[in-house]
Amino acid sequence: MKENNLDIFDKHESEVRSYVRGFPTVFHQAKGYKLWDMDENEYIDFFSGAGALNYGHNDENMKQKLLEYIQEDGIAHSLDMASKTKGEFLQKFHEIILEPRDLNYKVMFPGPTGTNSVESALKLARKVTGRTNVISFTNGFHGMTIGALSVTGNAFKRNGAGIPLHHSFTMPFDNYMQNTGQEIAYIERLLDDNGSGVELPAAIILETVQGEGGLNAARMEWLQSIERICRERDILLIIDDVQAGVGRTGTFFSFEPAGIKPDIVCLSKSIGGYGLPLALTLIHPDYDKFAPGEHNGTFRGNNMAFVTGTEALNYWKDNQLEKSVQEKSERIYAFLKDMIEKYPKLKGTHRGRGFMQGIASDVDGLADKVTEKCFKHGLIMETAGSDDEVFKLFPPITIDDEGLNAGLAILEKAIKETTEEKNLVTS
Amino acid sequence: MKENNLDIFDKHESEVRSYVRGFPTVFHQAKGYKLWDMDENEYIDFFSGAGALNYGHNDENMKQKLLEYIQEDGIAHSLDMASKTKGEFLQKFHEIILEPRDLNYKVMFPGPTGTNSVESALKLARKVTGRTNVISFTNGFHGMTIGALSVTGNAFKRNGAGIPLHHSFTMPFDNYMQNTGQEIAYIERLLDDNGSGVELPAAIILETVQGEGGLNAARMEWLQSIERICRERDILLIIDDVQAGVGRTGTFFSFEPAGIKPDIVCLSKSIGGYGLPLALTLIHPDYDKFAPGEHNGTFRGNNMAFVTGTEALNYWKDNQLEKSVQEKSERIYAFLKDMIEKYPKLKGTHRGRGFMQGIASDVDGLADKVTEKCFKHGLIMETAGSDDEVFKLFPPITIDDEGLNAGLAILEKAIKETTEEKNLVTS
Amino acid sequence: MKENNLDIFDKHESEVRSYVRGFPTVFHQAKGYKLWDMDENEYIDFFSGAGALNYGHNDENMKQKLLEYIQEDGIAHSLDMASKTKGEFLQKFHEIILEPRDLNYKVMFPGPTGTNSVESALKLARKVTGRTNVISFTNGFHGMTIGALSVTGNAFKRNGAGIPLHHSFTMPFDNYMQNTGQEIAYIERLLDDNGSGVELPAAIILETVQGEGGLNAARMEWLQSIERICRERDILLIIDDVQAGVGRTGTFFSFEPAGIKPDIVCLSKSIGGYGLPLALTLIHPDYDKFAPGEHNGTFRGNNMAFVTGTEALNYWKDNQLEKSVQEKSERIYAFLKDMIEKYPKLKGTHRGRGFMQGIASDVDGLADKVTEKCFKHGLIMETAGSDDEVFKLFPPITIDDEGLNAGLAILEKAIKETTEEKNLVTS
Amino acid sequence: MKENNLDIFDKHESEVRSYVRGFPTVFHQAKGYKLWDMDENEYIDFFSGAGALNYGHNDENMKQKLLEYIQEDGIAHSLDMASKTKGEFLQKFHEIILEPRDLNYKVMFPGPTGTNSVESALKLARKVTGRTNVISFTNGFHGMTIGALSVTGNAFKRNGAGIPLHHSFTMPFDNYMQNTGQEIAYIERLLDDNGSGVELPAAIILETVQGEGGLNAARMEWLQSIERICRERDILLIIDDVQAGVGRTGTFFSFEPAGIKPDIVCLSKSIGGYGLPLALTLIHPDYDKFAPGEHNGTFRGNNMAFVTGTEALNYWKDNQLEKSVQEKSERIYAFLKDMIEKYPKLKGTHRGRGFMQGIASDVDGLADKVTEKCFKHGLIMETAGSDDEVFKLFPPITIDDEGLNAGLAILEKAIKETTEEKNLVTS
Repeated sequence: MKENNLDIFDKHESEVRSYVRGFPTVFHQAKGYKLWDMDENEYIDFFSGAGALNYGHNDENMKQKLLEYIQEDGIAHSLDMASKTKGEFLQKFHEIILEPRDLNYKVMFPGPTGTNSVESALKLARKVTGRTNVISFTNGFHGMTIGALSVTGNAFKRNGAGIPLHHSFTMPFDNYMQNTGQEIAYIERLLDDNGSGVELPAAIILETVQGEGGLNAARMEWLQSIERICRERDILLIIDDVQAGVGRTGTFFSFEPAGIKPDIVCLSKSIGGYGLPLALTLIHPDYDKFAPGEHNGTFRGNNMAFVTGTEALNYWKDNQLEKSVQEKSERIYAFLKDMIEKYPKLKGTHRGRGFMQGIASDVDGLADKVTEKCFKHGLIMETAGSDDEVFKLFPPITIDDEGLNAGLAILEKAIKETTEEKNLVTS
Repeated sequence: MKENNLDIFDKHESEVRSYVRGFPTVFHQAKGYKLWDMDENEYIDFFSGAGALNYGHNDENMKQKLLEYIQEDGIAHSLDMASKTKGEFLQKFHEIILEPRDLNYKVMFPGPTGTNSVESALKLARKVTGRTNVISFTNGFHGMTIGALSVTGNAFKRNGAGIPLHHSFTMPFDNYMQNTGQEIAYIERLLDDNGSGVELPAAIILETVQGEGGLNAARMEWLQSIERICRERDILLIIDDVQAGVGRTGTFFSFEPAGIKPDIVCLSKSIGGYGLPLALTLIHPDYDKFAPGEHNGTFRGNNMAFVTGTEALNYWKDNQLEKSVQEKSERIYAFLKDMIEKYPKLKGTHRGRGFMQGIASDVDGLADKVTEKCFKHGLIMETAGSDDEVFKLFPPITIDDEGLNAGLAILEKAIKETTEEKNLVTS
Repeated sequence: MKENNLDIFDKHESEVRSYVRGFPTVFHQAKGYKLWDMDENEYIDFFSGAGALNYGHNDENMKQKLLEYIQEDGIAHSLDMASKTKGEFLQKFHEIILEPRDLNYKVMFPGPTGTNSVESALKLARKVTGRTNVISFTNGFHGMTIGALSVTGNAFKRNGAGIPLHHSFTMPFDNYMQNTGQEIAYIERLLDDNGSGVELPAAIILETVQGEGGLNAARMEWLQSIERICRERDILLIIDDVQAGVGRTGTFFSFEPAGIKPDIVCLSKSIGGYGLPLALTLIHPDYDKFAPGEHNGTFRGNNMAFVTGTEALNYWKDNQLEKSVQEKSERIYAFLKDMIEKYPKLKGTHRGRGFMQGIASDVDGLADKVTEKCFKHGLIMETAGSDDEVFKLFPPITIDDEGLNAGLAILEKAIKETTEEKNLVTS
Repeated sequence: MKENNLDIFDKHESEVRSYVRGFPTVFHQAKGYKLWDMDENEYIDFFSGAGALNYGHNDENMKQKLLEYIQEDGIAHSLDMASKTKGEFLQKFHEIILEPRDLNYKVMFPGPTGTNSVESALKLARKVTGRTNVISFTNGFHGMTIGALSVTGNAFKRNGAGIPLHHSFTMPFDNYMQNTGQEIAYIERLLDDNGSGVELPAAIILETVQGEGGLNAARMEWLQSIERICRERDILLIIDDVQAGVGRTGTFFSFEPAGIKPDIVCLSKSIGGYGLPLALTLIHPDYDKFAPGEHNGTFRGNNMAFVTGTEALNYWKDNQLEKSVQEKSERIYAFLKDMIEKYPKLKGTHRGRGFMQGIASDVDGLADKVTEKCFKHGLIMETAGSDDEVFKLFPPITIDDEGLNAGLAILEKAIKETTEEKNLVTS
């Protein structure tokens, strides 16, 4: 490919392609929080591969380890055979992540994507409880294969299934019943009333911050209530930390501040460190009941991802990264609050926490306009929510002040331009 | 990890791990058809990552391209944004694979695994036809997520779902009604009889050679009949070529000798060339009807796999590899026929075609014993079939004569030893 | 059968039998609000065949018509062929019931039971909308066949299905979210939010007073809100008036006071007048879209039930019965309020309206004790609610003052005795 | 209703009505094998209420018992309370039917229709086995509620469900794989092959003669094979004898000549004797495991049907009726064989056995023309089969020679006229 043009994609790739439509250029290289296209245009990345690039692009330490591994003909693909690099990952993940947090999990490699992890978690919860129903939440997103899609809220994505989706029941997420605070009481009533029509579930599955669903962040006390609901009724608690995990909210697991201990945790996206496909399902030993091979997948042992994923764990040896993310999160929060006040035409509401914050706008189509302008000015950012009503700041958690400032500056410019447009309200 | 021992996996990895149980050692390096463990033991590979390593391990040309790409900070992860390397892959795949075979497909990247591709194919077929039912076949295998599992035959794997599996109907694969030749007539009767209870399906999905299901190879005329059945009733034909494709049977697509043109083709495993996660769903333009993002996945744009996958396509510029595979397939066939005759205690029947052949044994547990002994003698090989009744030769298609001979010699040794055991029949 | 003993039922009838356990005697004759067993013991009927005997037993006018019809060899069974008596029923039902209420329905005979009517209503709603989901309510009861059971709330009954029940979503009935008044807002939010996970339904099905579910009576404004929700979103409104209809609440249809016009109405139980199996599905002409025979049933044309059902319609020629029911309902209400006050140990709450009122007790097992004592004193009455926490007054709507007084007196006696028991609270 | 006209039905009854379209007149009276409409036209009944009137219309003995019962105010409706007349039915059914046939069943009253019985049988089989799948057969018919419809083959009826139908798997009925005799072998293969994709079922449900499905009569050895298949795999055998039972094939139960003993038997239609709604589910005591009320229905205790049903059992005190049916069946067989030969334009094949025989015609639309002409000449007869390709002789089993001769004469006349029509082949 010699030129930066999109003809080849129009010609050969399916209509299902989507991000290329919002970011219409041909990317070529990337480093840290920057990307370059084939015309050497530079872009700041406030998108981070939808959470798969929390450490930014092509981290230098990981890169060197990866090059070495390939150079010395380390085994690339080994299914779930034992490999040196997999062993090293397992050990380090235990020592650096699980042990210090007093978490006790067996690690399953369910196939290299988040939806594989969710599917394995649902299967397992159903197997160990003998029940079929799973409670999911309004605006939850868990993946695009049929099992994961059944616990996903988005109507457009659900319709894509082409079949009715079952074995799940949607409950109100924190603050869904606007300002009534009745969500927990209602959930308990449905579960305890023999006449409610809701079967006792195998599990409750949730994201602590709903990334795709509009950056809805559950309060810690709500998460604690959900854990209590599970414990009192022998329901498994599954936290899908695919997007909110691996540091995105400021702690390795997003649920740490709540002090809860899920029975199963789904990890993927940034767990491989370098953007390479990898997923983990963490299982409390009491529930480690799959028979050998009862769930599997060809790419469940991606050794290159083990190499970079192991290196990435060094970020968690001390609390420096955590602190940095938490401090910068406050700056982002302040910035967004300021935007909402300064530009009332946004009709904006703050959403999210950590490095997954954004603004929900009551103005139809506004969020899309903002991200479109951002792109023109060299900032990659996407929208979220079932009506794309939220613009979503998702910088690498390793971003420095310079990068963050530059990105925020572009964002304000885009907001300003958008709110100054005459025909702002389009519908 | 310093030592070749498995404690760390026992301690930290889930009970679901399986291949490590059959090949109990810690692998470290690999090249071509060879693997080495941490004690420098050498193994010949007649397994090929279950079909993900058709070109063998760490192919030198691919390796160099990959090192270069990483070295120059080529973008690693880009979802379905356009990237230089993705564009190159698309173009080359069109020129080298599709065009010469007179095949007209749009390429979808559904997420990096075979099951992602199958899920996308099923969703799309249901969407474009407005029907929900899909015909699958006895002993078919299509993946472990709920959509794909619903069209999979294996009872152990289906039970793992924890929920009833629907929206599919299992039909007899070629030669399933032993020696009656009635399969096609029965399928047509069920489809055409308004009283049969079988809904007109959106699609028929099949593997031309059932890899997991026991190396059952459909005859070309049977495949042609299935295509005709589809055409006459407006049913989509989906070929799952995840395991049998990318040269495994001697042609790039396994269905080429039948002269059929599926509406949708699922590819994964070896399409990335180097064992890196990648999957493609090939869609006839008439059915390219997903809305943007209606199916997606975080790792659907794995640029490293594009780099190696593009390089791998060079193997298909001329027919040298094809010829080599076809010639060696005949040698494997002759060898297996010889084994069956020479070792009548095997109670063996030949199965499969191309580089996916094997022997089904009527002796309970025999195939497992053979592969166990192979491993002890330095040959990696697995079993297949719903009762693990088949031992399955799956060498890299790039293997040379020396490697093939060495592997076959070990296999014969293992067969000999097994059949000489006293308590051969165990049940 | 010569003697009043239950051996024959113990010996030959399935364990599934239930009412015989609460009313352990062998009944023989019945008239009006009275029953007699084989020992000539007399019982007052506050049960009315669970709503199938609203006009009491063996109404003299209906009896004479029925005897005549049988005597003259009127055709007994005619499926959905035309018959004289069916024609007469259709005409009179139109003239006396539909026309004066300004209701416009085509009449379907879906098979002779309430569950047949519900199944036909659900099928039709799905057919005409092309959607599969149906909204049902907490503590709703609609029948025991799989379609109807799927929209029923009771866990014990749902478990009896032996399969997961789908294609329905349970919503909070009026006043389910105790004293918050949020039910309608929540329902609207779930229906309008593209991320809620709740599919746009074909229909909403409800009982205005939940008979089995614990005598929960929806307020008229709540019913109006539900109708509005349906109209605004092109959702069909199905009222299951099987138990609450045919005068039970004081008007022929239970929904009349709300002024709503359902798209489909299910009627059964008392529609045949004499306790003979008959059911109707009333369908707004716009939705009368079944093909001939697309739903059917052997006993859908029960001519004897047409004879008595036609005669029964005379009760609705003027408003005398209506007035009587409404007056007596007020007396029942006053009586129950008095009981709650007079016997605080009941921990009672009033439930229901019309001739379907009762008391919910917070004391575990109390309602069962009350009905047990009633039986001993010659009053037939049952419990309701998912934990049988409600005792339920269900006299014939034709009962006279004497009967009502006698029944209430026995009931008070039973309440008094029960609340005087030492070990009242058993759990 | 004064006149014999159909306007009232056109105006007020739903479009779903069907038989009235084939037999367009208003019936009024009936006796034995004769019906009369409002214009005093007489019709011979070769339809018998689709099997609900095996004893003909208004049998004199039953009529007298019924009149007496109503006259003396016998209780009409009593749910599953004990009643004198129910006790008498239970006892007599045990003595006259079950005991002499060495059958051991508890009797369940599941609601008054065949589909109620089928639903209860399926629920129970699933409950006692803990499995969900049920094997049904091509062209089987079991009812119109969702559970029963899921095991029904007819596409038109299945489509009416408006939802996908699950938890069942359709297998080939006897002789479905035309003249190959492979059905039993194929069923066994699917059940025993762990890779077939067919779950071990809770039950196999079948009709020995498929009434709606085209009068396909299973051979006795086939039924025995099915019973053996069930016994060897702990699968429950459910015989749906709703249409073929109660003497229709010449013995009380249709399966008697095969010597098999089903685990569950469904009875309805003629079990009430007089065309009154009643259904029974016969359950082997080992499987009598429903909890009280786990399945129920308002009209499960139809005392009038107990009265007539008890009287009807007298027909089975000796073997006179059996012998008569068997002799006349042979005459019907001879007659149909003769028609096929004499009128080759029929392109006819004989179908069925006993008093459920008919001719399947290869000529599109011919069967409908024959029954249409029959009606014009005063004979009521319907078609069967998924394409209405069979005309179906279904006289009362109590018919005398005169009636049978008269009916057959009309039928031949209709056949003769139809085959003489010019444009016989219409499609």
